[in-house]
Order: sequence, then structure tokens, then C-alpha cells
Amino acid sequence: MAKPGIPKGTRDFSPSEVAKRQYIISAIKHHFELFGFQPIETPSFENSDTLMGKYGEEGDRLIFKILNSGNYFYDKKGIELPQSLEELKANSAENITTEQLIELNKFTAKISEKALRYDLTVPFARYVVQHQNDITFPFKRYQVQPVWRADNPQKGRFREFYQCDADVVGSTSLWQEVELVQLYDAVFTQLGLDGATIKINNRKVLGGIAEVIGAKDKLIDFTVALDKLDKIGEDGVKAEMLAKGIEAQAIEKVQPLFNFTGSIDEKLNQLADLLAGSEEGTKGVEELRFICNNVAATGLGNSILDLDVTLARGLNYYTGAIFEVSAPKEVKLGSIGGGGRYDDLTGIFGLKNMSGVGISFGLDRIYLVLEELNLFPETVTEGTKVLFINFGDKEAQYALKAISRLRNQGIKAELYPDNAKIGKQFQYADKRIIPFAVLTGDTEIDNNNFTLKNLASGTQDIVTFDQLVEQLTGL
Amino acid sequence: MAKPGIPKGTRDFSPSEVAKRQYIISAIKHHFELFGFQPIETPSFENSDTLMGKYGEEGDRLIFKILNSGNYFYDKKGIELPQSLEELKANSAENITTEQLIELNKFTAKISEKALRYDLTVPFARYVVQHQNDITFPFKRYQVQPVWRADNPQKGRFREFYQCDADVVGSTSLWQEVELVQLYDAVFTQLGLDGATIKINNRKVLGGIAEVIGAKDKLIDFTVALDKLDKIGEDGVKAEMLAKGIEAQAIEKVQPLFNFTGSIDEKLNQLADLLAGSEEGTKGVEELRFICNNVAATGLGNSILDLDVTLARGLNYYTGAIFEVSAPKEVKLGSIGGGGRYDDLTGIFGLKNMSGVGISFGLDRIYLVLEELNLFPETVTEGTKVLFINFGDKEAQYALKAISRLRNQGIKAELYPDNAKIGKQFQYADKRIIPFAVLTGDTEIDNNNFTLKNLASGTQDIVTFDQLVEQLTGL
Repeated sequence: MAKPGIPKGTRDFSPSEVAKRQYIISAIKHHFELFGFQPIETPSFENSDTLMGKYGEEGDRLIFKILNSGNYFYDKKGIELPQSLEELKANSAENITTEQLIELNKFTAKISEKALRYDLTVPFARYVVQHQNDITFPFKRYQVQPVWRADNPQKGRFREFYQCDADVVGSTSLWQEVELVQLYDAVFTQLGLDGATIKINNRKVLGGIAEVIGAKDKLIDFTVALDKLDKIGEDGVKAEMLAKGIEAQAIEKVQPLFNFTGSIDEKLNQLADLLAGSEEGTKGVEELRFICNNVAATGLGNSILDLDVTLARGLNYYTGAIFEVSAPKEVKLGSIGGGGRYDDLTGIFGLKNMSGVGISFGLDRIYLVLEELNLFPETVTEGTKVLFINFGDKEAQYALKAISRLRNQGIKAELYPDNAKIGKQFQYADKRIIPFAVLTGDTEIDNNNFTLKNLASGTQDIVTFDQLVEQLTGL
Repeated sequence: MAKPGIPKGTRDFSPSEVAKRQYIISAIKHHFELFGFQPIETPSFENSDTLMGKYGEEGDRLIFKILNSGNYFYDKKGIELPQSLEELKANSAENITTEQLIELNKFTAKISEKALRYDLTVPFARYVVQHQNDITFPFKRYQVQPVWRADNPQKGRFREFYQCDADVVGSTSLWQEVELVQLYDAVFTQLGLDGATIKINNRKVLGGIAEVIGAKDKLIDFTVALDKLDKIGEDGVKAEMLAKGIEAQAIEKVQPLFNFTGSIDEKLNQLADLLAGSEEGTKGVEELRFICNNVAATGLGNSILDLDVTLARGLNYYTGAIFEVSAPKEVKLGSIGGGGRYDDLTGIFGLKNMSGVGISFGLDRIYLVLEELNLFPETVTEGTKVLFINFGDKEAQYALKAISRLRNQGIKAELYPDNAKIGKQFQYADKRIIPFAVLTGDTEIDNNNFTLKNLASGTQDIVTFDQLVEQLTGL
């Protein structure tokens, strides 16, 4: 029989991996709650029509669809086969026509009416609309749950992964952006990360730049090229912009962006001059100024706030602030979080004028960063503190009584289940990295005490129960 | 636009529901770890061939199948349509022939190669076999994750629900059964449950009874009838047994089971006499005696251990001990946990001779029990401790500085994001059950202090920052 495996892009997590992931999740949840966010959970699968069409054509393709239960092929609804199914069968996937694809999608919609959650934002919007009468607005919710995407797996990209999101819906106040920057900082500071950069931009600033260069449709090309300034230099960036069809005259108008340095205040002043002619751009600069000034006034821990006008993530849905967090420079891992403001979060489900703003933490990336920088505390993977060696049933009963009392005091304790050779039992302790062993023979039972062995040093002592507790907790 | 909904049998969890569920899960995990169990996690979906055929025909039908991604209908493998597909279409589900069903299942297997986890035991067995070289045996693992079943939803039965399992694999020692009884007791005692009954039986005892009544195939009928003793009396039970084809002579042989009372010891003695002629039965009684004696020697908290020979759950796979936990009598909710010993856990994946024993906690049922008995501590759903009223940007900045410092001290604090009417802000605090509000106007800013209002009593004080911390934490 071949060794069993798991689907590509999915993972098993070993005990130490679970412990480390939980350490990160606990830190994130702890700060979500300190900041007043409340947890919700939504089902792993939603009705297909809740998800389909919300993530673009590519997204629709990447959503995992669940086959209807029962005899899905001929249920009461009278499912019809695509007329050209036989032709489809003869074709290769590459040769499919648009008409055939549409037929196939229609057929899929009939045999599959549920789909696995693709992110936490759309289910959150659905939740808010569905439960709007029970919710107190502004609603500060957090959600830490897995999502699924039929992406091609690659390093750091999985088909099942956790998202850790905090969003506020129902207020346009910029104080929320201020607090979300602080929230990022609080979590990363607690995790011991030094120098995570919280990059901020504003959709309206990007809109202003588009106005200035006179080409709304070229905005992505523009920001992508500008983002390469460090790598290919001013001339290289300009050449790329020209190649993408942005006019030389337009590029000249935003010349300050090629030497966009200094403090955030200095950058904002340059930006204000540059976008003075754009109402939208000026509004964006004002918003950024409010956020950055107030973050500065309250101060940050170990993180750095930076203004990055090339930051253009979520351009299709963000309407105000845009956030992205970079890992400290010494680890080349890219983004460890992101978020932004979307003015009409719940409109897709019929509840208008609900502004939302939120951030997300990238659990897998943060894990890799902490691993690489050796920032997981040793205590995270600490398991059982003491193993009682099994010398037989009489001794085991004596041991188990003590073990129960230790557990009542919060000490993780185990009895080796079998009366195996003592070497094997010590080997178990060694492999499990259990620091102490207790030996209980006739002498110990008669004297109502315990032989406690420190497995690292090899030293051993005869101790009473109270001394046992002391030694096991005192370390 | 119609209000959006969620698939039947699934649930949204509100903040207070998440908090209460987490409270239970934390208690369970805490004790799992005190007992030396280590956490693992497995993917939400497995390869179909890992799951199919492991839960019987009914189970196979209830497994949620995931449609292959991409153009599943005509991928490189050249999927063939069932020949009789057109006939199938014309048929109603009820009229499907066995041949057609087989064809349909074959077709399903081609368009769907992954399926959602149905329980945690099969994935655990798969994990053990796949990672056997990295595992230290005996392997004590716990796993708290959702599972999915396409069951017809009904009260207390959902299509997505959590299982909380602890299992040991790789040892046949009965000390593990002893510890699992203690583990049940430790969790329920911690949750404040008084009088949960941990019922124990043994597959070998049931085997012995079958031998005595001379009808292995009637064992289920026998235990089901015997279980009704309280309700329909001895005569009723006997009548049912006769109706099921169990001979009068056979029933007479097990007469002691109709008056099966007294202490566990007394019951075991009756059972030993009854099963004296059966080697298997005698072995079962010995195992039960070992477990019950050693549980008695170490003692239990608030739970009761009871021997129940009608307990026949998992008869198809359990080979030794069988456990089931009943909620305290005053709540009529049935089983809140179950488990047992299966001698060949990993054999289905090719690793022979691995005995496993484990227990499961029923999160949803435990939730209902705690709710009904009013056992959730009030602190469980406590959220934000203090709301700072927003009087404008200058005041908000002053407030946010204090809020940051409070959060650094572990106090959950919020700033109302908008400079809304004060009544609306207090209403928000009221609905969120926030016990304190802080007001900061010009006077407070000038004097570097805060007006702290107790929202329950309505009293308010002017306090320094240190006094603020004291009052918010001292309560």
C-alpha cells in the first residue's frame, strides 16, 4: 500500500508548528480585543451566489466548488446537460470556445450550489447585511479563520491558509485608520519584530496622480514602473513609463515623485504641491496628513510608518487609505499584512452607504519571519514538564495519584503507559523534550516521596510532593 | 435585493457565541495539554480515496465532495460520461438502478478528487502513517477542528461542527483508559458541570453476552432492547427481545442483566459470573475492573463513573473500552462525549498493529448544557472595559494617547470614532455593555486628568491616569 498523502497546496501541522502558529494567532487576537474588536465566525462554505462574481473572473475560477449532495445529476430541478457536452468532451481544455465555457459554467452552477470561503471580507459583508438588526454600529469585528483558493501552490502560497482580519464598518472616521496603524504596530512589537514598515497610501492620491498625468487607465502601469525606482533608476523607470504609453510631458509633471524622500511631513508637502490642482488628490493628502500626524502624536513601538505613493494594492475596491506592511529589511519576504478603506463594503448585498476599513495579518508570512529571525520564545513549544516512569501497576497507581495532583496545580505531567524497559521510557522523554522524570519504586511508595531526575543535568533528588511541585514550577 | 443567507445546516457565530465556544475549547485544550497530549492540525479537505469507504455506504454519501478546479469536464485524463447518463437524466432519484448509481459514482470520482473531512479520526490515522518516521510513540495527539457532514440538519445536528478529540496511538496499556476517564472528569469539573456520567463498557463484554445468548447477529437488538429497561420494564424488554428473534432460553441466561444495579464492583462481580463461560467476556470484565479500580483509587472530581452494558456505540470499530458521557440528569440532552479503543487504527493505511484509544468532546452539546444550566461565567463575554467619548479631534488625540497607555496595561479600551452626539455615543456603550466611559474636554486636557463615569451607577469622578488604571483594573 502506498503511503497516504494530502492534496497539493495543503499542509499537515505538527505539534510544534501548531504551537508556533497559535502563539502568533494569540498575539493577534489579544490585540484585536484590546482595541475593542469582537470575534465572529462564519461557515466554511457559503451559497455560491454569495461568492461568485465578487473577486473578478480569475477569482471565480479559483473558488473551490462543492458538489451538491445526493444524486446531483438528476435531482428534482431537472438538470439539463450542456447541449454541446459531447463536443466539449472531444475538445482539449485549450480549445474551449466562450460559448462552451458559458454552458459549462451554467452546468457547474447546477451541480454545485455551495463553495468554500475565498476570503473573510465578502462573508463579513454578507454577515453584516444578514444580521444588521442585531449589530451595534460602528461594528468592530475580527475574524481568524481559514480560506481556500485553487491557486497554483508555490513557496509561501497555499490552497488552504488562515486570514486574520480586523475591520470596522459603519463609520468614515479617520481615527480608525490611526488606530489600525497602532494595531499593526502593537502586534508586531509584541511579537518582537523590530522595524516592520507600515506603508500607507491613499486611493485619492493615486486618483490625483492619474489626473495629473492625464491617464486614469495608465495608473497601474505608472505605479508599477515607479515602484522599480530603487532597482532600475530614474531613467529606467521613465523609459518603462514611455514604453507603456505614458507621455513624456505627463511624466515631467510628476517629476517630484522621482526624488520623493525625507520625512513623512516633507513628502506630504511635496505631494500637496504636486496635486494642488486635483480636488481628489488634495483630499487624499489631507487624509494622509491627519492619519500620519495623529500616529506621530501617539507614537509607535518598534514599527515604522512610511508614506509610499507606489502602493496600489486593492485599487479596484479601496477608496481611501491603503496599507501594506513589509517585514524588516533583513528578511526578504515581502508583505506580512495589508488593508484599506472601502466606501461601500456591503453594497454588493444591498445595504448601501456602509463605509468599512480593515487590516489583515498574513499568518504564514509572519511565521516565516519569526522563524528566520529566531523570534519564537523557547517556551512556545514547551510541552510536558515531567514523565513518571512506569515500573508496574502498583507503582503506576502511586504515580498517577501524584500526577493528578500535579495537573490540578497546572503542571503538565504524563505517566509512561507501559511497563517498558527503562531505557525506552527515558528515550521517550528525550524525544519529547520532557525536562524531568520521576521514579517511584517500593522505597518511594513506602516513604511517600519521589525520586526526581533532571534529564538535562542527570542529577537526581529524593523529594516530597511539595518539593516536587516547587522544583517543577520554580524553573 | 433579497437578504443574503447561508447554506442549511451551517451557522454564523456572533461575538458572544464565539466567546462562549472559545471558553469551552480553551478548557478542553488546557486539560488535553495537562495530560500530555500534543496538538496537530490536518487539512480541511483530503484526497477522496483517503476518506471514501471508511465510514460505510451511508458515510460515503454524507461526505462533501469538492469539484476539481479548472475545466473538470474534459481535463487531460479524458473523462468519460456515464453511458446511461441520458437515461439517468430522465429518471427520478428514487428510480435509479444499482448499475446507474455505480456509473454515477464513477463519474463523480472523476470530476471530484477531494472531499471535506468527515471526522478527525481517519485524518489522524492518515497523519500517523504518513509521518510515522517523525513521530514518537506512544503518540498522544489532540485535534480541535471542524468537520463536515451532508446530514439532514436538525436540532443540535449541523453540517459543519467542531470535534475535539484526544487519542493515543501505539500502546495497548489500560492506564490510558484510566487517564481518559480522568480527562473527561477534569474538563467537566473545570466547566462547573456537576454530575456528568461517564459511562463505560467493553466490546469484549458485549462479545461475551453475544456468546451467552448464542446470537452474535442479535447483539444490537439485544442492547437496544435492554437499554429501554427504565422505560418499558423487564417484561417489555423481554417481549421486544423475543419479537426480535432472541430465544427465551437465551434471555433467561442473562437474567442478572435485568436487575443490574449496585456499585461498579457489584456489577462487575455479577458480570464475571454471567460471562464465566466466555473467554472473551471474562477478558472484558478484567479490563473493566482494572480501569474502574484505578479510577476509584485516584478519584474523580464532579463526574460519576458508571458501568453500562447497554452501551454499544461504535460496535463496528471499537475493540476494547467504549465510553459515552451523559449530561447531568436535569438537562435532557443525551451524549456530550464518546470514545473507545480500536485495536487497528492505522491498518486502513497499511500500518498494522497500532492500537489506539481516544475520546471526543461534543462542543455543541456541551454549549447547550452550560447555557441551560447557566454555567458560563459572566466574564466570558466581557469585552471593552472603557469607551472614550469623542468630543472632536483635539480631545480625541488626548484620549487616544491615554487609550494606548491603557492597552499597554492590558485594558480593553475604545475611542468612539466619530464626534457624534453624546447620547448616541453612550447608547453605543450601553449596547456593547461597556461598563465605563471617559470624558475628556478642555478642562481635563488642561489638568491632565479624566472624568470617569461608571455607566451602571451613573456616578462620575475626576481621576488621574494612575487612578484611571486602578479603577478599571480594580473591579
